[in-house]
Amino acid sequence: MPSALPPNPDLRRLRDLARALQRNCRSGEPSSQRRLLSVFPDADPATVALSKTLAVVAREHGYASWPKLKAEVEARRASQADDRARRRTIYEGKAKILYEGPEPGTLIQHFKDDTTAFDAEKRAVLEGKGVINSRISEFVMRRLNAVGVQNHFIERLSPTEQLIREVEIIPLEVVCRNIAAGSLSQRFGLPEGQPLPRALIEFYLKDDRLHDPMVAEEHIAAFDWASPQEIADIRAVTLKVNDELRGVFGAVGITLVDFKLEFGRVREGDVSRIILADEISPDSCRLWDSASRKKLDKDRFRRDLGDVVESYTEVARRLGVM
Amino acid sequence: MPSALPPNPDLRRLRDLARALQRNCRSGEPSSQRRLLSVFPDADPATVALSKTLAVVAREHGYASWPKLKAEVEARRASQADDRARRRTIYEGKAKILYEGPEPGTLIQHFKDDTTAFDAEKRAVLEGKGVINSRISEFVMRRLNAVGVQNHFIERLSPTEQLIREVEIIPLEVVCRNIAAGSLSQRFGLPEGQPLPRALIEFYLKDDRLHDPMVAEEHIAAFDWASPQEIADIRAVTLKVNDELRGVFGAVGITLVDFKLEFGRVREGDVSRIILADEISPDSCRLWDSASRKKLDKDRFRRDLGDVVESYTEVARRLGVM
Repeated sequence: MPSALPPNPDLRRLRDLARALQRNCRSGEPSSQRRLLSVFPDADPATVALSKTLAVVAREHGYASWPKLKAEVEARRASQADDRARRRTIYEGKAKILYEGPEPGTLIQHFKDDTTAFDAEKRAVLEGKGVINSRISEFVMRRLNAVGVQNHFIERLSPTEQLIREVEIIPLEVVCRNIAAGSLSQRFGLPEGQPLPRALIEFYLKDDRLHDPMVAEEHIAAFDWASPQEIADIRAVTLKVNDELRGVFGAVGITLVDFKLEFGRVREGDVSRIILADEISPDSCRLWDSASRKKLDKDRFRRDLGDVVESYTEVARRLGVM
Repeated sequence: MPSALPPNPDLRRLRDLARALQRNCRSGEPSSQRRLLSVFPDADPATVALSKTLAVVAREHGYASWPKLKAEVEARRASQADDRARRRTIYEGKAKILYEGPEPGTLIQHFKDDTTAFDAEKRAVLEGKGVINSRISEFVMRRLNAVGVQNHFIERLSPTEQLIREVEIIPLEVVCRNIAAGSLSQRFGLPEGQPLPRALIEFYLKDDRLHDPMVAEEHIAAFDWASPQEIADIRAVTLKVNDELRGVFGAVGITLVDFKLEFGRVREGDVSRIILADEISPDSCRLWDSASRKKLDKDRFRRDLGDVVESYTEVARRLGVM
């Protein structure tokens, strides 16, 4: 079964394929044995060495030997690393970097391990967070795309990098809440955990210097941060995302308390429309274990509850993406 | 010219009338001299004593002598003070007290000299402020009523007391802004004095414990503080008040920077509608002298600029109500 290498081949994964082939040959699995014998007609499947199944995997991907495949993968990595080093940084945020993409209209979104809270007064590097958030966000964006919520995700480039569509970001954080928590609880004296009468959508101006103040549609319209039509579209999409994500998380025993979205404009000829951008991850959602109410999100960092990456990993594991 | 005493007679004002009459008699003004001679045919207008013109004023109000009129005024005052002392306090705020009114569906709104700022952390008693604000607010409410903005004002009872319609107060402070100042300037980093692209309406929850947080229509609807129809009505009335007041103040060289309104529900049979309530005064508006930009409002107190009552008096004087 010849197949091309993926754009970002992973040597470890290819080696895993060879190990699985070795295991299956030894245990007598017929199709695996046929794959071995088609390359090495004289081999004994019952005692085959890993060096042979590595060679089979290499041949199946169009390379004469494992060392040749390995050299190719390493050459590609080096060249990509060069590309990346040369790549222009478009924007560096607290948890992500946007680089210019391979084609006009695209960007590369890199998920950092850095995390910050309280206007960046509290900071940490959480090893592995970037990989987990990238995977969770990819899963959610693909899922949303499947139900008609257009978004900026195009494809995964590496464990921490996504190819995304370039958008003109709307300077608003759109927060949707199902249950009182965080600043809403503080602002209105509502006990954390109190269900809200209905999903509540709030807008905050993205402006670190002003500490992201809450705004009303009145301000958005008067200062022209988004048009009334865009706000109407954003509201509709946000409610749809809420419905879908409540289902996705609910199915794996996670309660979606609230989440933050960002949107961007894409222009097609004379018209522009809004699509979902940024990320959807435990950094941007409040997620509680439905049974124990244990927090599985960034509040673990904000409130020094410990086990931050472990909790994010638990979310990824339940969603089946890790 | 006999005339009845007003419901809340003011001895000082009656004494001023007698002084004016004395002055006018002495200076030879014919109608004043006729008034004197009709009571004291033998008097010499050119040298008339104040005791005689006091007696004339008393007779003109239906009393045999000044001491009799004075006794009546003092008796009424004592009886009203008794009434007031017996009156039940419905609500005491920072700058006003609401007492139960003489009839169901009415209240008495008393303007205090007390003033507070910054969540009542800063306090003072400004002698005369209650009288001035009551007069300015009365003037504005009458004017608004004349252009179709229904409000709670019924009539003046005394220099600091108004008979008002009882309403079910909507727990929102409705702020309308024409020029950036105060919390809007702070929130969005806008220089004070910068004209806004259009009149901006903001809502704040009336809740001292929560420090009157800004709210969006989304919160108002979700927590049922007012119905969407009420909010639409409040917006329309607020813009009409803005148009009218910009004209009223603009005509006397005062720029209406922003102002705060409160609204209440009145029920008539099965339907309820909203009317304007509370007060409109230099305590609730930002008013700048149009030429010099001198502040003529409560910012003089908030920012320790001095001349608070003098500035409020200047506003009343320009409006011709003092």
